[in-house]
Amino acid sequence: MKKSLGAKTIVYPTPVFIVGTYDENETPDVMAAAWGGISCSNPPCVSISLQKHRYTLKNINERKAFTINIPSEKFVCEADYFGIVSGKDENKFEKTGLTPVKSEFVDAPYIEEFPLILECKLLNSIDLGMHVQLNGQIMDVKLDEEAANESGLPDINKIKPLTFDPAGVSYYGIGKLLGKAFNLGKKFR
Amino acid sequence: MKKSLGAKTIVYPTPVFIVGTYDENETPDVMAAAWGGISCSNPPCVSISLQKHRYTLKNINERKAFTINIPSEKFVCEADYFGIVSGKDENKFEKTGLTPVKSEFVDAPYIEEFPLILECKLLNSIDLGMHVQLNGQIMDVKLDEEAANESGLPDINKIKPLTFDPAGVSYYGIGKLLGKAFNLGKKFR
Repeated sequence: MKKSLGAKTIVYPTPVFIVGTYDENETPDVMAAAWGGISCSNPPCVSISLQKHRYTLKNINERKAFTINIPSEKFVCEADYFGIVSGKDENKFEKTGLTPVKSEFVDAPYIEEFPLILECKLLNSIDLGMHVQLNGQIMDVKLDEEAANESGLPDINKIKPLTFDPAGVSYYGIGKLLGKAFNLGKKFR
Repeated sequence: MKKSLGAKTIVYPTPVFIVGTYDENETPDVMAAAWGGISCSNPPCVSISLQKHRYTLKNINERKAFTINIPSEKFVCEADYFGIVSGKDENKFEKTGLTPVKSEFVDAPYIEEFPLILECKLLNSIDLGMHVQLNGQIMDVKLDEEAANESGLPDINKIKPLTFDPAGVSYYGIGKLLGKAFNLGKKFR
């Protein structure tokens, strides 16, 4: 039996994207965003949605660039902190001791200590109401060598990414392998 | 040490959204989409990206409506099957034995057996290249009573949602609770 909850932003899983930008003083900033996901395979694009008052939105509009930094479980406190305070008020790299690195392909910083980075060039944005949705073209993906599998691709069990639970307002890790995609479903054919 | 992987659509976590639509013959169809996420808090919106040849895209453009159905772990084979075949070729509800139900607020079917449903009205779409990105306004969220916590909200541990690993081309469950959001980060203030 299903119960109606009304119009709410609850879906699973939602990501914990740490969005990196430079401000007008060249100061690197980061914020946490749970609204977003991959939006196109070719050109490869990722979408994030930001509230209009966000310091990061101003920075992206000026530099036309941002990074998405994927935190490991061990950085859950840093990731949460990045969503609590504004870069207008605090230097989040100084407070956490994490290291900003200038991206290779776009005018935005990434976090050295995080295992997976997407360097993104702003493609377009659309005003949806409380949030502005931004599409960034992924210009490069950078991966810690220690988080790679034998093929050099990301190993989810080494990255240990976070997921955000919007109903429980909590963070979870990734669980057990359930099976291969484009394979398990063949039994219904 | 970071290694550059080039421009790829790899990010964690990505969702397994099962998108429900009616076709021109009133036949309910479902497909799997891993590109998408919440896109606005007010009005509540969710975004999905579909390849241009998708049967679902045609259906959404005609009905201006779709549902997002969140599968539990026990439906991982059904969810995968929904991403393997086209509704042009097979009746996916008949093949899997799942039950289509007409939505209450939009002109699209949902899957009775899945624990969490979003009923969505098409707001806008944008052509990004290989994919069209669609924003749907969430008109209602429906939850299985057995998947609710004591407050009536979704319990992630009862829903047991899937996540898709785009690098490993595999499905994973949700792992352990890491802590409360907007709280863990206070130690850096």
